[in-house]
Amino acid sequence: MSETSLTSLLTGPVEVVGTGLIGTSIALACRRAGLEVLLTDTTSDHVRTATGLGAGRARTAQDVPQLVVVAVPPDALGAVINQVLDTAGPETVVTDVGSVKAGPLAAVAGHPAISRYVGSHPMAGTEHSGPLSANAELFDGRPWAIVPGPDATSSATRVVEALALVCGAVPVHLSPVEHDRAVARTSHVPHLMASLVAGTLAGASPEHLALSGTGVRDVTRVAGGDPHLYSQIISGNATAVATLLAEVRDRLDLALEAVAAGDRAGLESLLAYGQAGTRAIPGKHGAAPQPMEAVRIALPDQPGGLARLFSDAGDSGVNIEDVRIDHDPGRPVGLVELDVVVGRAEELRAALESRGWVTHR
Amino acid sequence: MSETSLTSLLTGPVEVVGTGLIGTSIALACRRAGLEVLLTDTTSDHVRTATGLGAGRARTAQDVPQLVVVAVPPDALGAVINQVLDTAGPETVVTDVGSVKAGPLAAVAGHPAISRYVGSHPMAGTEHSGPLSANAELFDGRPWAIVPGPDATSSATRVVEALALVCGAVPVHLSPVEHDRAVARTSHVPHLMASLVAGTLAGASPEHLALSGTGVRDVTRVAGGDPHLYSQIISGNATAVATLLAEVRDRLDLALEAVAAGDRAGLESLLAYGQAGTRAIPGKHGAAPQPMEAVRIALPDQPGGLARLFSDAGDSGVNIEDVRIDHDPGRPVGLVELDVVVGRAEELRAALESRGWVTHR
Repeated sequence: MSETSLTSLLTGPVEVVGTGLIGTSIALACRRAGLEVLLTDTTSDHVRTATGLGAGRARTAQDVPQLVVVAVPPDALGAVINQVLDTAGPETVVTDVGSVKAGPLAAVAGHPAISRYVGSHPMAGTEHSGPLSANAELFDGRPWAIVPGPDATSSATRVVEALALVCGAVPVHLSPVEHDRAVARTSHVPHLMASLVAGTLAGASPEHLALSGTGVRDVTRVAGGDPHLYSQIISGNATAVATLLAEVRDRLDLALEAVAAGDRAGLESLLAYGQAGTRAIPGKHGAAPQPMEAVRIALPDQPGGLARLFSDAGDSGVNIEDVRIDHDPGRPVGLVELDVVVGRAEELRAALESRGWVTHR
Repeated sequence: MSETSLTSLLTGPVEVVGTGLIGTSIALACRRAGLEVLLTDTTSDHVRTATGLGAGRARTAQDVPQLVVVAVPPDALGAVINQVLDTAGPETVVTDVGSVKAGPLAAVAGHPAISRYVGSHPMAGTEHSGPLSANAELFDGRPWAIVPGPDATSSATRVVEALALVCGAVPVHLSPVEHDRAVARTSHVPHLMASLVAGTLAGASPEHLALSGTGVRDVTRVAGGDPHLYSQIISGNATAVATLLAEVRDRLDLALEAVAAGDRAGLESLLAYGQAGTRAIPGKHGAAPQPMEAVRIALPDQPGGLARLFSDAGDSGVNIEDVRIDHDPGRPVGLVELDVVVGRAEELRAALESRGWVTHR
């Protein structure tokens, strides 16, 4: 079925239960598409705020939504999905947008309306919260996992896929078990490992921390996320996380043995396996990862410096694929690394040097 | 002693043994300061290349350097330092720039000239190699660990500190044991953990990897480094790495137990400890970490887009402290996150929106 005909399956009204960041953003995206949107939240202030933003109107008892989107905190998902299935119309499709999918599905097991429930999971940033942070563009081009259980009808699944498309997202079809394994691998275990590394820095002496470079900053960045939220998410995916984490623990034991025993070949082979893993992550826009070269430029730390740099880089005609700013302590000037596809670095470097920039090789 | 009077202690000639990236960059920085520089390498092509770059001249038998800088691969350090101490003049100070310090020091134990050996370690990027990648500015503002052993004289130590200052670096004084513990914590263990996470991605199904976001990319980035080089470096710091890695393994076991047992409070407390660790890393220019707010902007993927964005951001007068580009697969437009100090985000957002940019909250 084409995207256009799929999208036309969503005719509304769409009810959004839980008008936080994700719920209100979905409501705004549906409104953008001209759909009628009904809003429900245990906090009536949130509904008023979302209504004020143009996200829809408060739901009344007479409304019969085509699709209900449950966007409540992880701990409340199961109860709210059940309640919505209990009370919704006989044709109403129900989805949720939680980060873990087996739990909500288990919570509705045996419900007479289970064929109309299809879990989903938009991969969108959540470091802010509340309706005031919402945006209709939040899901543009993001993966959105569509996760039907074994009892879901294909027509219900297509309505949820249509929601993802209306929101501008890219649907990715996965079973609940596969989805939860996937996010254990791409999100929950990396988060835990980053947190363990960051934990070794807590209480370390300032002299030791003075040697921190960009590597340890990158590795630990995600560990800055809200511990309360992540403990809910990770606990909700306990089976998949524990399975993968046990594998990682076994490989950590191998690494530890190799280091302690001076088995350098063993260590090198573990590191080579990791290097291969970094190349498995899909590149920009889902394409195969492209080999990149970095151009390093010294940057005076003052307003407008980056603007001048990017303006000069833009004039070169070489597209910048990624950018990093080095914040090493004590550095009076910043160091900016611009990634370009292999073969274009020299061109960019020459263009920048001709405009007075100091590049590092 | 002031920086200026310390710097004046380095009068040259400076001999650089090993004209790769680091050695040639040190040579160029010394030449920039007007010092005479002598070059030695087992590969005579490298000496010719470095000489051609203006890094100094080939050493002759008559030359008596004030300071010899040993910049050879980790495995060769001990032998080369010993050989230099054997043959150098009676007043010549010797340093090395290896990533680990206890090993080279142990290699020279009992040498009659040990009082003139002072290890050191500039914290500078090494993803490229060879003299052609060298640059006099490589060390500007970077930490440079000064690591005298117990037998080193203070006058020898001051000469090595002067070298760090002449290269524009910020000297950080540490004992060999403390240095090696510090880099185990800030570099080697983070690298190993990143490699273990990346290893879980090797061979994972494309459907799973399609859900990869910026988090897992950040966590695994350093694991892309050369396995052969890092196995040398990490093996050279086996004691400190194994000690810390064993601690991390024990905490990983706690995390695994907490996840498997559904002990959410235990998990949250581990995550909170990691969050505290992310705040312990020194901020820009060695200052205390400043709380940041992110402004998220949709960016069309074409040359010049970043230039226009930074030009408009520069006009706002709000300094950009950090920048990230989101490369989620399938995203037709990029998402740029600009970090600014807390309290300035709204100003930047308004300035960008008034120029037609779509910001995400």
